[in-house]
Amino acid sequence: MNADASVVKMPGLIDPHVHLREPGATHKEDWDSGTAAALAGGFTLVLAMPNTQPPVTGAASLEMTLAAARRKARCDYAQYLGAGPENAGEVASLAGGAAGLKMYLDQTYGPLRLDQMADWRAHFAAWPKDRPIVAHAEGRTMAAVILLAALYERPLHLAHVATREEILLIRLAKEKGLRVTCEATPHHLFLCEEDLPARGLSGGRAEVRPRLATAADREALWANLEVIDCFASDHAPHTLAEKDGAQPPPGFPGLETALPLYLSAVAEGRLSLEDVLMRCYTNPRRIFNLPEQPETWLEVDLQAAGEISAGKTYTRCGWTPFEGWQTRGRLQRVVLRGREVYHDETVLAAPGYGKNIREQG
Amino acid sequence: MNADASVVKMPGLIDPHVHLREPGATHKEDWDSGTAAALAGGFTLVLAMPNTQPPVTGAASLEMTLAAARRKARCDYAQYLGAGPENAGEVASLAGGAAGLKMYLDQTYGPLRLDQMADWRAHFAAWPKDRPIVAHAEGRTMAAVILLAALYERPLHLAHVATREEILLIRLAKEKGLRVTCEATPHHLFLCEEDLPARGLSGGRAEVRPRLATAADREALWANLEVIDCFASDHAPHTLAEKDGAQPPPGFPGLETALPLYLSAVAEGRLSLEDVLMRCYTNPRRIFNLPEQPETWLEVDLQAAGEISAGKTYTRCGWTPFEGWQTRGRLQRVVLRGREVYHDETVLAAPGYGKNIREQG
Repeated sequence: MNADASVVKMPGLIDPHVHLREPGATHKEDWDSGTAAALAGGFTLVLAMPNTQPPVTGAASLEMTLAAARRKARCDYAQYLGAGPENAGEVASLAGGAAGLKMYLDQTYGPLRLDQMADWRAHFAAWPKDRPIVAHAEGRTMAAVILLAALYERPLHLAHVATREEILLIRLAKEKGLRVTCEATPHHLFLCEEDLPARGLSGGRAEVRPRLATAADREALWANLEVIDCFASDHAPHTLAEKDGAQPPPGFPGLETALPLYLSAVAEGRLSLEDVLMRCYTNPRRIFNLPEQPETWLEVDLQAAGEISAGKTYTRCGWTPFEGWQTRGRLQRVVLRGREVYHDETVLAAPGYGKNIREQG
Repeated sequence: MNADASVVKMPGLIDPHVHLREPGATHKEDWDSGTAAALAGGFTLVLAMPNTQPPVTGAASLEMTLAAARRKARCDYAQYLGAGPENAGEVASLAGGAAGLKMYLDQTYGPLRLDQMADWRAHFAAWPKDRPIVAHAEGRTMAAVILLAALYERPLHLAHVATREEILLIRLAKEKGLRVTCEATPHHLFLCEEDLPARGLSGGRAEVRPRLATAADREALWANLEVIDCFASDHAPHTLAEKDGAQPPPGFPGLETALPLYLSAVAEGRLSLEDVLMRCYTNPRRIFNLPEQPETWLEVDLQAAGEISAGKTYTRCGWTPFEGWQTRGRLQRVVLRGREVYHDETVLAAPGYGKNIREQG
């Protein structure tokens, strides 16, 4: 095979679950560095989570983060609203301008958390039926929110499925006709708790939510791949100083390491390229009702060998749990809306080039 | 109104949720004292929970408790099987001879507890479709088990609903056509956490599962009375020495105080006699598929005033959280299968008179 024969064109990928940390924690990421990392990872459209400081829970905080995004974003984007105990009406009124509604129902990073099912119900009742809802809900909480969504007759997307119990629950719910979709992260697909020592991940560096599960849980995700609608990085950058500190925040960066991991799995025959495109493009577009990005594509060399190294990344956090991972398959070029925005390991898009795909009018 | 005009006949009542403590803890109750308490409370048929010592989780332990029941029970009865992580097949094979299957999914007294949803699923898959399943599941766990039961297309009875969140969830599930039923206890209907100091209930004496909730939770049960299919005492006797000890077990006795409390609510106009009969006879018979008890009735004086006192009770535990409660409505006589078994505050049935209503052949 000559070199050219291994280069393929792919659509610009979509990451429906990233944390860009602005406003509030731009020392670890902002709309500039985070969207540069997205393009360097092959993602031309990212959906940003609302657990910023302040969290995005209403008109003022939404405008605060979108103002930063307008100035700084290098790839296209939309911003989630966060469900709180008092804001069901307000966020519903803002739904048209947001990626969707995020409901935090289990432990996570930041203050957003809905403990009472009465608050879940208020959001299910108020949020427009045709707009996405994403839940962070683990184990039996996942079963609980699937019930509530079904009772309110609305589709529900389940973030970062991590365990055998969860993926089998979603399989069963889908088989019975419930309108649930889900995503899995690269770290839950490629790592497990048994790997932590060998990867040098201990203390705060091992902390992520949902936690890395067992090898059996990881293999259950692969065994139920057809149940997984999307791959999502859950890109959650924190600095190593924070990860090594007394109260380490949970989260791994992921935007720049996801595609090489997926392509390596393609090279190994564990995934097909079609599997990747379904979960990084086709299904996210459908589930989150995302517009086409015209004249947008990637060029990927499926055969090129590489090695994951935080030294080469655009994310501000400066580390990766996949350090030293040998990969096959490399992103060569990204074109976004007719402009070359990444080439030769260099992001070329300027801050502000990215568009809010939910912008109205 | 003369005295006779206030005396009414009622069917023998059914309590679908009692703990009789045998085998393993007969110092606080056994099949003799517990079924005497049932008759003294107007209950001619009780369904006994499996969290004994050993728990009733298979053929040997079922036979152990039924052997004691055959010798000692004064009223009719059936015995639940307990769902454990390893016994889905065995208990399913015993279903015909049991009251039903009890799944403990949240904190309770004793060792029976199913933490993994995979274990819930094994029981939903194995247990015969036409046999009752009862779940102890609070809050979001209740929502989770309602989903699993719905996915396995089987009816589910929810024990001791205690909060506004729970009763509203069950209301919604019923409105959407799910086959769920539920029960409420006298202590959750007539007490709340704010009452504890005034009733002299502190420390271990206040401990019960589910915990007494707020006054708002209690009022939500009354406001949604039509959603409550059954009243159940959750009679859970422990001695005062245990309740006042270092590790107080949760639970209140209830068999002998339930009916006076319900009749007092009738006298006050908060319940109708029909409300009581629906929840203590008609609905339990239907939900648990219980046979008619021929020539079985109560005589109740609706006007007679009384006062709840542990000094008058048959339960071996020797106390009640309702001590000193002023009541209106008194049980005068109980006839069970043609024999007078209670009269003039005296239980007349001998040990062994009670029948296992699930006995085959």
